[in-house]
Amino acid sequence: MIIDALQCSHFDREIFERLRAGGVTCVTATLGFWEDTLESLDAIGRYRDLVRANDDLVLIATSADDIREAADGDRTAIVLGYQNSCALAGRIRYAELFADLGVRVIQLTYNTQNEVGGSCYEPEDSGLTRYGRELIAELNRAGVLVDLSHVGERTSREAIEVSEKPVAFTHANPAALAPHRRNKSDALLRALAERGGVVGLAVYRNISGDYADTPDRWCEMVAHAVEVCGIDHVGIGTDLSEKGTPADIEWMRRGRWTRTAGYGANTPDQPLKAPPLEWFSTNADFPVIAQALERHGFSAAEAEAIMGGNWLRLYGEVFGGSAGADRAGKLAAAGHER
Amino acid sequence: MIIDALQCSHFDREIFERLRAGGVTCVTATLGFWEDTLESLDAIGRYRDLVRANDDLVLIATSADDIREAADGDRTAIVLGYQNSCALAGRIRYAELFADLGVRVIQLTYNTQNEVGGSCYEPEDSGLTRYGRELIAELNRAGVLVDLSHVGERTSREAIEVSEKPVAFTHANPAALAPHRRNKSDALLRALAERGGVVGLAVYRNISGDYADTPDRWCEMVAHAVEVCGIDHVGIGTDLSEKGTPADIEWMRRGRWTRTAGYGANTPDQPLKAPPLEWFSTNADFPVIAQALERHGFSAAEAEAIMGGNWLRLYGEVFGGSAGADRAGKLAAAGHER
Repeated sequence: MIIDALQCSHFDREIFERLRAGGVTCVTATLGFWEDTLESLDAIGRYRDLVRANDDLVLIATSADDIREAADGDRTAIVLGYQNSCALAGRIRYAELFADLGVRVIQLTYNTQNEVGGSCYEPEDSGLTRYGRELIAELNRAGVLVDLSHVGERTSREAIEVSEKPVAFTHANPAALAPHRRNKSDALLRALAERGGVVGLAVYRNISGDYADTPDRWCEMVAHAVEVCGIDHVGIGTDLSEKGTPADIEWMRRGRWTRTAGYGANTPDQPLKAPPLEWFSTNADFPVIAQALERHGFSAAEAEAIMGGNWLRLYGEVFGGSAGADRAGKLAAAGHER
Repeated sequence: MIIDALQCSHFDREIFERLRAGGVTCVTATLGFWEDTLESLDAIGRYRDLVRANDDLVLIATSADDIREAADGDRTAIVLGYQNSCALAGRIRYAELFADLGVRVIQLTYNTQNEVGGSCYEPEDSGLTRYGRELIAELNRAGVLVDLSHVGERTSREAIEVSEKPVAFTHANPAALAPHRRNKSDALLRALAERGGVVGLAVYRNISGDYADTPDRWCEMVAHAVEVCGIDHVGIGTDLSEKGTPADIEWMRRGRWTRTAGYGANTPDQPLKAPPLEWFSTNADFPVIAQALERHGFSAAEAEAIMGGNWLRLYGEVFGGSAGADRAGKLAAAGHER
């Protein structure tokens, strides 16, 4: 079972076919970065249309069972996620509504501070705000995974502490090996794992340093993460952007918040997202990672956990607690299950 | 079984208790008139909180089965509805999303022309627009009842024709007896009934003329509607506004579209909504109608159909076809049920 916890790809039928070719069981699709509520709802609507038009290849998953169902039916399960919490427009009750519409992953901040807390790129991390604390409780209740990949160190630490459900870095690497604001200290990785969370290592040059040069080098990064977090807390979150365009990068980097170049994970001399790796450029390439893990000496069980088993367990613990649009009152009266 | 197809009441625990006292099985609550998408989502969130806090008295119903469940458990089923389609922001895909959030009734226009068609108060009724036609198909597919109460005559006629599912006037009276722009001609009532729709007669002085004076006079209006539509196509839609305030009326009449007094169903010399009737002023008064229907000579079966049976049948035919947030792909692959 192969699960990729984060992609920015422009999904279409061709990519869905590559997901099948790569044997990918489940992938989280990014539905937005800076989009407001209406744009975020638009994205859900468009994504549903895309899935309906390709339902021989994919389905939208909202539970671990859906992912198993996809695997049994030779289809790929798509998890809907946002890389920012701005779709919620600062409204605590929208967490439940978006959950009811199928969203299962929300990153608290993208590249700038917001009402929830600090981003990894802010010079000063405010920590988790009061709204942020309430929002995490609400996301827990609604069955939505809290993603801290682009979130600042202090806000991340506090989010890990207050969340009753395990949380995730869906796409980040160990800063000890690849120093970058986007990556995570060993202390933070350890804290995440101690609360049951999972880190998804990225196959993304900008935040991987030399460790992206070959699949075997990349596995050294996996080995470090496993050493710090334990074998049950490391997975894959490629951050792959198949069919991404310069306009996409421009939007990710600047959104609407700046007139100047905000480089995000890039540098002034390399303003665009780095090209994909030679050994991992499309969704058909996942077997390369499985083979490299084996060469590195991971057992079959360990490789299975890293390739997808850990995400499936986490999703099973977190997903599916949604209040249910039409179940208000009904659920509650049946014994306050939530 | 008593079903009221439309209220503007400010629901709270006291009103829920009166609904129980009146033996009301189901009531459609108005969640908005002019509210935009975010405000409309806010209303859903607040309403869910209200229902969760009073789940010993009410539940949110999204199917006829839910209504039966409420009746069996001595609770009142609340159907969520809007008196305008502006919550959808002109986005065809939002019909399905709002359906997934539990909304089951949408009136195409309130008191002004919009992108869907003409209102009963416009001097010129454009008829149903191209978007309007697509929206009705989408509402049909999503299991949302199309309400034409405030909609113009021509737009209503065209909506009745194009809709594959029966539609409704949830709160309107026969114009032949009570001439008013808000009321419906016999021809239109007949067309509605021929396609399986139901009209809910209003206990609202402004659009009832003398027929609101006593419950027995009001039953003459019922008898006329039954003569025109047939016994299977007449129900109740009180338009009751328990705990309504002058600010509510101001909002209904003017929204944000005018600086001048838009009188809606009122007249310049009576700018506010008329006070409730003496014989029907709260949700505890429904038995008065049942008794009057009996005095008028309706059989027990006929009275049952009028009091709620007809709405329950219509809801059973229309509700619950929703695409389902998380079912895109899954449903489709299971044999394209929709």
